Amino acid sequence: MAIDDLSDGEKLPSIRSLSKTLEVNNVTVINAFKMLEQEGLVYTVEGSGTYVRKPLKNYGLMNLEEGDFELMLSGIYPHSKPNVDFASVTPSPDLFPIKEFKESLIEVLDRDGGNAFSYPEIRGYEPLRESISKFLLDNYSINLSVDGILITSGGQQGLDIISKTLIEPLDVVFVENPTYPGAYQAFKSRGAKIIGIPMENDGINIEILKSYLKRYSPKFIYTMPNFQNPTTICYSEEKKRELLRLAIEHDFYIVEDDFLTDLTFNNSILYPVKSYDRSEKVIFIKSFSKIFMPGIRVGFLTVPEDIFKDVYKAKHSTDISSSGYLQRAFDLYLRNGYWINYIENIRENYKKKYDLFTSELDKLSNLGISYIKPNGGLSVWVNLDDDISQTKVYEDCLKLGLATVPGNVFSVDQNSYINALRLSFSTPELDEIPLGFSILKNVLSNIKNEDKRTYMPFV
Amino acid sequence: MAIDDLSDGEKLPSIRSLSKTLEVNNVTVINAFKMLEQEGLVYTVEGSGTYVRKPLKNYGLMNLEEGDFELMLSGIYPHSKPNVDFASVTPSPDLFPIKEFKESLIEVLDRDGGNAFSYPEIRGYEPLRESISKFLLDNYSINLSVDGILITSGGQQGLDIISKTLIEPLDVVFVENPTYPGAYQAFKSRGAKIIGIPMENDGINIEILKSYLKRYSPKFIYTMPNFQNPTTICYSEEKKRELLRLAIEHDFYIVEDDFLTDLTFNNSILYPVKSYDRSEKVIFIKSFSKIFMPGIRVGFLTVPEDIFKDVYKAKHSTDISSSGYLQRAFDLYLRNGYWINYIENIRENYKKKYDLFTSELDKLSNLGISYIKPNGGLSVWVNLDDDISQTKVYEDCLKLGLATVPGNVFSVDQNSYINALRLSFSTPELDEIPLGFSILKNVLSNIKNEDKRTYMPFV
Repeated sequence: MAIDDLSDGEKLPSIRSLSKTLEVNNVTVINAFKMLEQEGLVYTVEGSGTYVRKPLKNYGLMNLEEGDFELMLSGIYPHSKPNVDFASVTPSPDLFPIKEFKESLIEVLDRDGGNAFSYPEIRGYEPLRESISKFLLDNYSINLSVDGILITSGGQQGLDIISKTLIEPLDVVFVENPTYPGAYQAFKSRGAKIIGIPMENDGINIEILKSYLKRYSPKFIYTMPNFQNPTTICYSEEKKRELLRLAIEHDFYIVEDDFLTDLTFNNSILYPVKSYDRSEKVIFIKSFSKIFMPGIRVGFLTVPEDIFKDVYKAKHSTDISSSGYLQRAFDLYLRNGYWINYIENIRENYKKKYDLFTSELDKLSNLGISYIKPNGGLSVWVNLDDDISQTKVYEDCLKLGLATVPGNVFSVDQNSYINALRLSFSTPELDEIPLGFSILKNVLSNIKNEDKRTYMPFV
Repeated sequence: MAIDDLSDGEKLPSIRSLSKTLEVNNVTVINAFKMLEQEGLVYTVEGSGTYVRKPLKNYGLMNLEEGDFELMLSGIYPHSKPNVDFASVTPSPDLFPIKEFKESLIEVLDRDGGNAFSYPEIRGYEPLRESISKFLLDNYSINLSVDGILITSGGQQGLDIISKTLIEPLDVVFVENPTYPGAYQAFKSRGAKIIGIPMENDGINIEILKSYLKRYSPKFIYTMPNFQNPTTICYSEEKKRELLRLAIEHDFYIVEDDFLTDLTFNNSILYPVKSYDRSEKVIFIKSFSKIFMPGIRVGFLTVPEDIFKDVYKAKHSTDISSSGYLQRAFDLYLRNGYWINYIENIRENYKKKYDLFTSELDKLSNLGISYIKPNGGLSVWVNLDDDISQTKVYEDCLKLGLATVPGNVFSVDQNSYINALRLSFSTPELDEIPLGFSILKNVLSNIKNEDKRTYMPFV
């Protein structure tokens, strides 16, 4: 019997009767129920039994045909611009180091003349690859030669190139659930069968990952171990190491997408999984769009030697090469030693917003929400109680001028249960934050006060 | 019997005997033979009969695994840099309008500050789309609103996005034969079945195109009607119109790749097929890499309304958006009115090279070569007599320090007969051109003087 044959709220047979029917041990049934619950497919009512949880069908990555959410995620709104934007994870332009970067831009023109605009190497401007190699060593203790680095036109292109290199139609790819829609689209566009593994508070659910590894041989797992999008969860070091161990044992790649590792607010140092990798199992994709400037469109990926030629070819057929001029300017910016001060400055600035944001959020704790403090990143993942519909909250907030993102936008399949909001503090000004929360409080209070029966959750 | 079952030089049955065996009219067999000959699969010896021409298997797009040629085509050489470069079609950096463009780059920073580096719209910076819309009207009489234009990170990305939008595995795509390898790779990467239609001196062979249209329903035909790569052939106006008529009749798109239309040397004005298009059948892809600067990485494509959403989505999953900073600077450059003077200047400069190049080439006409003067573009397509091996010429030239591209690098399938060289005059300095031709003369003379029997053509 497939999950689709069951109705929402339908009671499953008892553990005892099921173990009898299937002629298996009680413990086996208990474990199976536990796994279904971890995947969000059923829920248990103490003393009563286990019930089917029919998932929300309206949104989710499967249903993004209209594209509205993608637009919204990119900071472009389908209808009108909201008053307060907790939706887009767009860095604030006033934090961009325009003065210093302008210096580099002009210096490159004076130094290189027309060569600054000729075809750069396909794999990227060599001096920039040197600077990146140094950046990796200084920041993440990753020791990598310039030949293992490919410059891309932003992080998304890294995903596109890896998809072209590794995915043939019907290949299996594992992703975290929820996950980043841009990655999902890149894999889906290549015809991949995409399987979501639930996230927990300290990273991916390793038990479910292991159970899927018995059934599938994925080409790779796509993961964001530090400040994951959308949950802003960081993997524990144990889970990072366990993931790497499994990749070696089962021979799949880890495609590690890193866009915010550098943005910690509590002086802790986070390491990517790539830092532990001694066997070229991790393909590390770095975007500078959020921690530097989106408009620079420079990112990179680290390339295992055995797929280098294929990656190189995919890059060529994607856009020949990334802008040599911006590569040269970014290289000079890094060489001029501006990075450390810059990153300290944005940490300080975003921390101010984060502190205010979380203190405002804490005030709403009695309105059916819960969250874990990420101590970094640019968003907070707010879980909603079962009797509060994320769709309702999202829509009501938008009507009052507050943009949020309902969590199910990031869900990988229709069977996963996600009832949450992603709230980001990167775009709003400091003084807009309380205004946004007054709207959210308003909406949540109204829902709380109205007759619950008129609101079917997940409808 | 498939062509692969026949040996090189094998004589085909006579027209009379074949018409008898197959119980068809003489004329049918004659037409079939004619078509085989047009496709380069057989050749006729007057008064003797028709013979199989076995194609060169060494090179060709099917065999590009090593990637050396792709590197070469991008101006990066597998081994050492040659003394004279007739291979790469890389514009000369000293022709780049660095002074004027620097002005725009700085003006944008002063005007827009950090906004210059924030996320631009997925479909491109609106003022630039306005400028492009004006550019299309002024230069090609193409009347298109800003909403029909998508900015890309160079022309190659236009091909990649169109491939993602239109090609599902096993879909049929028609291309010119020979064609541009970067396009071939983009289509192949999506699993397309690619069919080459031979080029003639005034454009694609319309009869063969029609015969293929009886057997296949292509998603689109990929074409470069003005200064085609690699042949630098321009379609006649009749063929442009006929192609469009067929696209409407058989309901396929024309993907028109335009990278050199502007580069005429005889004051003629060339129009893209898009100029004649009233039914949104033509997707016009423009690259500014060759006529402006490769490093700007800005191109665009025109998007028929019925596929706009899909194209938009493909762009997003490819690289989110193109660099907003370079888009703003290019927009300002166009608005400041620099374009006309610039294009006049490069026409004048390249014409000087072209005149010298063709006069040098004319001196070699008794050494087994022939070509058609393109009166524009950046390359000349030089056909070699049957008894001269393109591979031998290519290799001997390279040994003496002259880089060329053997024509078969651009051939679409192993059965096509191409024996030519693509020689480009964009990279060498004016005074390097005679040196290059002295090497080529040397090589061709040696081949001419040696015992022909020691050279098996196509080996």
